[in-house]
Amino acid sequence: MTHIDINKPILDKNDKLAQSNRELLQEKKVFALDLMASPGAGKTTTILATIEALKDRYKIAVIEGDIASNVDALKIKAAGIPAIQINTGGICHLESDMIRSALDQLPLDELDFIIIENVGNLVCTTEFYLGEDAKVMILSVPEGDDKPHKYPGIFQTSKAVLISKIDTLPVFDFDREDFETTVKSLNPKAPIFPVSAKTGEGMEEWIDWLTAQIDKVKFA
Amino acid sequence: MTHIDINKPILDKNDKLAQSNRELLQEKKVFALDLMASPGAGKTTTILATIEALKDRYKIAVIEGDIASNVDALKIKAAGIPAIQINTGGICHLESDMIRSALDQLPLDELDFIIIENVGNLVCTTEFYLGEDAKVMILSVPEGDDKPHKYPGIFQTSKAVLISKIDTLPVFDFDREDFETTVKSLNPKAPIFPVSAKTGEGMEEWIDWLTAQIDKVKFA
Repeated sequence: MTHIDINKPILDKNDKLAQSNRELLQEKKVFALDLMASPGAGKTTTILATIEALKDRYKIAVIEGDIASNVDALKIKAAGIPAIQINTGGICHLESDMIRSALDQLPLDELDFIIIENVGNLVCTTEFYLGEDAKVMILSVPEGDDKPHKYPGIFQTSKAVLISKIDTLPVFDFDREDFETTVKSLNPKAPIFPVSAKTGEGMEEWIDWLTAQIDKVKFA
Repeated sequence: MTHIDINKPILDKNDKLAQSNRELLQEKKVFALDLMASPGAGKTTTILATIEALKDRYKIAVIEGDIASNVDALKIKAAGIPAIQINTGGICHLESDMIRSALDQLPLDELDFIIIENVGNLVCTTEFYLGEDAKVMILSVPEGDDKPHKYPGIFQTSKAVLISKIDTLPVFDFDREDFETTVKSLNPKAPIFPVSAKTGEGMEEWIDWLTAQIDKVKFA
């Protein structure tokens, strides 16, 4: 099987600009979260629930990455939060230059927390450092408990793992214990948060963890 | 926003070998289906149900594409069907050279139908022609009805669209009419098959369509 490493020069260029994004965010004391998941795992829904929980505590903005359309940015704006939509054309992940264009349009001096919603993809998104403080991933119950075996990279790269749509456990054949054991074997340090944006289950633990991360940067 | 077309030379090379795969399959009168979907949309489950429906009528083999692991190939082999597992390393799609390696290991003279399960991805998979007769995609109800807006390419490339896990419609907020209207606007010719491998709903229509496609090649 042929593995062609087409990504190397692009990654080098990407990483340099990501580092510059990092420095800009640090200077402005803004915590940036890169949220990764499959299409339809509930990224936007989780972001909306997270905004609802944190909007009185922090000034928040969202950068939306999609192949096409602006449906997600419209949902975020409807919640009264500034949102920048990036359309990647055919590219299956965000890159640091796209994030830089978005940062240049945001009032960084007034912000505490930027949520980057990456393109729905369990593969490409993990390989591109954007300058974020943390990558976090969501795996939804309907996707199945075998995903850590099939997409180990994203589980290893994530600082925390959310299991979304946890309210649908009774409908699907999802072995939560087996899933958590495999995730722990790939990434022993990452906390796992089972959540349901629908019922609110588990949101408190996720929000507590996130608040601690944001505060570390805000009060650095 | 920068769009770097890193794919062009690789696509040219890919397409040449894909054409050669195409000729080989045609010569052997084997129908090859490239099945694409998000992670966890139910590709393997749909394949198993399809095998169950067609195994007495056709000689079938499966080529499994995954970043890592062989869990899917093991499931197919447990159903008594030859399966070749391709691990792409980090690559988010199958390419024609990987398919050729798999074809070289299969008894093509004895086969009627090869199902290629592509890597779980709504983006990269659509761009690579493998030599297949048809690309078909699955969108599962839990992923949401907005996916055609966000990933138009895969809906345009697919010869048929399956809506899987249709039995979970009552649990999710999925507007089937809106979804089908958008798919029809992107791809007026593709039939849409709502299916549930769990309850068997809709499988007959999908199997009938597929049988017609396979027979066109087998009796060409």
